[in-house]
Amino acid sequence: MKFTLQHTDPQSKARAGVLKTDHGDIETPIFMPVGTAGSVKAVHQRELTYDIKAQIILGNTYHLYLRPGLGVLEKAGGLHKFNGWEKPILTDSGGYQVFSLAGTRKITEEGVVFKSHIDGSKHIFSPEGVMDIQRSIGADIIMAFDECTPYPCEFEYARKSMDMTHRWLKRCIERFDSTEGKYGYNQTLFPIVQGSVYKDLRKRSAEFIASCDREGNAIGGLSVGEPAEMMYEMTEMVTDILPEDKPRYLMGVGTPANILECIALGVDMFDCVMPTRNARNGMLFTSEGIINIRNEKWKEDFSPLDPVINSYVSSFYSKAYLRHLTISKEILAAQIASIHNLAFYLWLVGQAREKIKSGEFSSWKDQMVKKVSTRL
Amino acid sequence: MKFTLQHTDPQSKARAGVLKTDHGDIETPIFMPVGTAGSVKAVHQRELTYDIKAQIILGNTYHLYLRPGLGVLEKAGGLHKFNGWEKPILTDSGGYQVFSLAGTRKITEEGVVFKSHIDGSKHIFSPEGVMDIQRSIGADIIMAFDECTPYPCEFEYARKSMDMTHRWLKRCIERFDSTEGKYGYNQTLFPIVQGSVYKDLRKRSAEFIASCDREGNAIGGLSVGEPAEMMYEMTEMVTDILPEDKPRYLMGVGTPANILECIALGVDMFDCVMPTRNARNGMLFTSEGIINIRNEKWKEDFSPLDPVINSYVSSFYSKAYLRHLTISKEILAAQIASIHNLAFYLWLVGQAREKIKSGEFSSWKDQMVKKVSTRL
Repeated sequence: MKFTLQHTDPQSKARAGVLKTDHGDIETPIFMPVGTAGSVKAVHQRELTYDIKAQIILGNTYHLYLRPGLGVLEKAGGLHKFNGWEKPILTDSGGYQVFSLAGTRKITEEGVVFKSHIDGSKHIFSPEGVMDIQRSIGADIIMAFDECTPYPCEFEYARKSMDMTHRWLKRCIERFDSTEGKYGYNQTLFPIVQGSVYKDLRKRSAEFIASCDREGNAIGGLSVGEPAEMMYEMTEMVTDILPEDKPRYLMGVGTPANILECIALGVDMFDCVMPTRNARNGMLFTSEGIINIRNEKWKEDFSPLDPVINSYVSSFYSKAYLRHLTISKEILAAQIASIHNLAFYLWLVGQAREKIKSGEFSSWKDQMVKKVSTRL
Repeated sequence: MKFTLQHTDPQSKARAGVLKTDHGDIETPIFMPVGTAGSVKAVHQRELTYDIKAQIILGNTYHLYLRPGLGVLEKAGGLHKFNGWEKPILTDSGGYQVFSLAGTRKITEEGVVFKSHIDGSKHIFSPEGVMDIQRSIGADIIMAFDECTPYPCEFEYARKSMDMTHRWLKRCIERFDSTEGKYGYNQTLFPIVQGSVYKDLRKRSAEFIASCDREGNAIGGLSVGEPAEMMYEMTEMVTDILPEDKPRYLMGVGTPANILECIALGVDMFDCVMPTRNARNGMLFTSEGIINIRNEKWKEDFSPLDPVINSYVSSFYSKAYLRHLTISKEILAAQIASIHNLAFYLWLVGQAREKIKSGEFSSWKDQMVKKVSTRL
């Protein structure tokens, strides 16, 4: 994997770059749609490519490990072959889901013992095991096994957890570096900065992660309920420390405004369930602001969802029609809103990239943050 | 509307024709996907056109009348403009849903008083009202307001109901013929043969319907639980009486085998929720037979769903992937299976049409009925 920094914004830390993988190039800053169980919910693979213009998607290790399971994925030749998505894939480490979804779970130095939320069966995720699992899934970018601390979190818990995450990282690296990809293409491992909302912990963690000298670095443990300003403060501290010549991935972020602000802080990669989850609840992100499509005001509004966004659904379907489908609980409502929201997110980061290249990012960002946060 | 009979099968009553409407031509025999509330469930309009190759879709008057309601539909300029489907639309009369879905309802000579299944509000459907509603929806083909008798049904009830349906038909015709389309294109009214499973009633009804001399005719009250042989017997009797130079629409039918058998009996048009409803339950209709995609046997079958069917999903997605999505309750499972099943139904009637044209229909039909009924 090779990251090339192409442009930097003169008035902020925003950067434009390109990340080369064996499954194709990723132009940064980028948003990665979440494909939990090997499917970006309600979206066809063809639509990801041609309407949303996704360049990389996420898979969740926890979900894929439980279903369809590694046996099926390995026989298929990896997740790309299994779901037909030929561009890059990033998998998380499964840690976050183990903590948020699984039943009774026990964290020890060795790893985490948990029960499947599907059938109650008992499993263990260890740093080594999670590397092997992600090798089998066949992600292009593999995440280190970490503990994502909740918010709020006591300082002592955050410190101990961070130290364990660091020890786990060493084991992840050792395992990753002593194994090979299973399907003939390269995989890379990103370590994750933790440290909750404590500056000194974040600093220590970022310095440790930077010292590991991997091909890219991630910032975890944010966007878990803390105020946005706190998230920005931590992100800024961490991006000051992480190396400039490597991509920075801020995990689980966020609203369109969050993404723009964090691009300004030097983040290159984002993922979040918000565009798809909120789509299924009738919330649309548009270039003019946020729409609750259930509102009476859209009942007879036959204008397209958002003609600025270059996806089939955004110009083909009207607000009134989508409102009708949403209220009538038609599956097509989730499909239309999911494609639109993801196309909007990809449009937004694409615009940010253009503005970084043309040197206009900072003033554009300030305007845009207001616009995309407006409730229409 | 103009129907041209192009070919007739020498060994059966099967026919190939073309039905010209202001929204385009329909090649018969044809299957019409059901778009209950203005959306064929889980299917984009673009997919209907390019993957499924639908030539006409259905809308349900009952559903559309309640939601989005006539005010919205009229302001949109009719259902075509509202949902973006530019080809022909047929609407049912709403009678079937009033009887099957609505709460307390009372049938009188005047019409049916019913309560909405959505909010309990009280409404009346009369023959005249239902003509006006379908004028407002803007369907190309409008159905007469009838009572669809259940199965089994006492002879006396069936007789009285049929007589009332005939009286209602006169009122429908009078209203329809004294009004005009609202959106600048022609609409046409199909009357419906009733009479339950009683030969003499079916004969009387078919003769009465034929005597009304409309541009097309429908057969209702079948596929409501009676044995298939009884449905075929009634259909055969009725198609012997209905005029040859007009299209014949068998309402609510059916399985792939039912459709092939009824094409052989001289039916030209079909609709059924089966391909989409069963898709949502994991049942696939394929050119080799029926698949329950949940079965363990598909777990590691990475072959495409059905490469014979010329739709994106049928060749792009594998059985193993669709099984995984179905078991994981992913929305994409319903999307894939719905598109595939509808594309299969359209492929099947398209094949039937080709075989009628080449004079091979009867022998092909016998083979195909066996094949499409096989459980794989």
